[in-house]
Amino acid sequence: MGHITIKELASRLNLSISTVSRALGDSHEISKATRDKVMALAQELNYTPNLYASSLRSQKSKTIAVIIPEILNNFFALAIDGIEEIAQQNGYHVLIYLTHDDHAKEAAMVQHLLNGRVDGILMSVAAETNDTSHIAEFAKHNIPVVFFDRVCDNFKTIKFVTDDYQSGFNATKHLVSRGCKNIAYLSLSKNLSIDQKRKDGYLDACKKLNRPAHIIDCTQSDAENEQIITDMLNADKTIDGIFASVEKLAISTYEVCNRLNIEIPQQLKIVSFSNLRIASLLKPGLTTINQPAFEIGKQAAVALFRALKNNTIFTKSEEIVIPSTLIARDSTAIK
Amino acid sequence: MGHITIKELASRLNLSISTVSRALGDSHEISKATRDKVMALAQELNYTPNLYASSLRSQKSKTIAVIIPEILNNFFALAIDGIEEIAQQNGYHVLIYLTHDDHAKEAAMVQHLLNGRVDGILMSVAAETNDTSHIAEFAKHNIPVVFFDRVCDNFKTIKFVTDDYQSGFNATKHLVSRGCKNIAYLSLSKNLSIDQKRKDGYLDACKKLNRPAHIIDCTQSDAENEQIITDMLNADKTIDGIFASVEKLAISTYEVCNRLNIEIPQQLKIVSFSNLRIASLLKPGLTTINQPAFEIGKQAAVALFRALKNNTIFTKSEEIVIPSTLIARDSTAIK
Repeated sequence: MGHITIKELASRLNLSISTVSRALGDSHEISKATRDKVMALAQELNYTPNLYASSLRSQKSKTIAVIIPEILNNFFALAIDGIEEIAQQNGYHVLIYLTHDDHAKEAAMVQHLLNGRVDGILMSVAAETNDTSHIAEFAKHNIPVVFFDRVCDNFKTIKFVTDDYQSGFNATKHLVSRGCKNIAYLSLSKNLSIDQKRKDGYLDACKKLNRPAHIIDCTQSDAENEQIITDMLNADKTIDGIFASVEKLAISTYEVCNRLNIEIPQQLKIVSFSNLRIASLLKPGLTTINQPAFEIGKQAAVALFRALKNNTIFTKSEEIVIPSTLIARDSTAIK
Repeated sequence: MGHITIKELASRLNLSISTVSRALGDSHEISKATRDKVMALAQELNYTPNLYASSLRSQKSKTIAVIIPEILNNFFALAIDGIEEIAQQNGYHVLIYLTHDDHAKEAAMVQHLLNGRVDGILMSVAAETNDTSHIAEFAKHNIPVVFFDRVCDNFKTIKFVTDDYQSGFNATKHLVSRGCKNIAYLSLSKNLSIDQKRKDGYLDACKKLNRPAHIIDCTQSDAENEQIITDMLNADKTIDGIFASVEKLAISTYEVCNRLNIEIPQQLKIVSFSNLRIASLLKPGLTTINQPAFEIGKQAAVALFRALKNNTIFTKSEEIVIPSTLIARDSTAIK
């Protein structure tokens, strides 16, 4: 028997070519009865689909994935809004994956996303990630990856970040200008690029302004962090300023101060990286370093779609810095 | 030429059967060079894969999708935590899709998820959705769907909800017990099941307790809502209580009160459905109806995995109610 074409299948079944094609592609637009009929004849006549053409990878999934550590953080929620705006303009779906800052989970997700499930990746790496071999798999599969916010230095691609070092320096300077003599820095993770840079800015500002430096290592657990902050404030009564590297550490500090009856800002002043919409509604309003979350998400997505359009991946490191803004509120007021 | 088997391909290429099988399946574990070699010989020898066996739908994707309206709402962030706990126990990945309460977007996503991309669906429907024909597609494709929180009455499946009617009644009664004489209900959408039930509880409580009822229709836009609330408070100076059906309407009310110098709770008392972690840190602390978000997500996921294990879908309506809790804070205090 010669080589059977879709056209011949269609003719024998008295169906249109497009119906047969969609039935072979298992399209939901075709009834199960029709699909079964087409499949049965295809098997009977030994119909050979073009394996290349039917390869999942040769088809665009029209989907991008956003891999982020968490969503209880407003930064990521806002960044996703920026990403979705651009994805929608390009007719793409957005999948969101949460790593919960767990390297093993992140690596498993990368494996899962290979093989044509998505055309491109926007990624903010897990705090635990310093081995990037799993991310390198995307490049091997010709899937472009764009980093935003939490980046890996040793993976070459385009990276959209804010000015974490300068903002860390400015936040510390702000606390000193409001009278703080002994400022503690609350760190989330040593492996996190943004944390490292914010900390470096803090350390350099402390050095320049002749203030002692205290790095307090916190964890992913709110309960543990509240204990760590309580212990710190009980151990050193001269601490009069807190620089929280991420929003949730500022919230934990507020909780602890409420419990210990420590008055903010009279006894302790607080500044935090945060995109909390209701920072101004807190008691007292929280002084924040606002990251351009929406803009970072948007610009990262624009870069990704440029790569998808040109069918390329990123092979060189390039860092694009979008500055943050310090918004002073009552938590650092002189009272 | 006779019917070529995978075994014959493997023998001719001097490769193992499993390598050829994975190469034909376009597995990332096989190098591109090997895949190309296998594909070329398969084409040359007119190899016919078993179309049924290679159908995507016959394979488990080991993935479930969670379709939700938004993530800036803490309810959904917490529900996802509950879902992920169960998914992880079952070795499944979780994809998150955001509809932004847009029916057309939700329908497009449903189309996208058919054909084996996911094995099951957990869904909280968009506020705009009253036509459920798109959701019915899942049943046609044998993909089980579990609803949680925002459900459709006219789609038959298992539904995990909280006691919205009773909580709406209790919230209104609470405001009356704190002295409110004229309470407004801020509604997000007429098409939203939870909003409808909360409103019914409010209306029945107003009737029973001899208070006038005011339904204020709000929108998805924070800016518009702040204008609507401002206009309402300017138009009727006797309004002394607000019942916000969702968290973001309470936040907008706080913003408006700050701007208009209206004192909470002295001039206006507020209660809201909310799972905001920092409700107690607001100025003043917000009285909330806390939904068992984590538990709802967890139990909904358990039901979905039971269906996946039994290879069934849900065909009957069943509603499982997990009660909410009113937590009184300063926003409804008598002062």
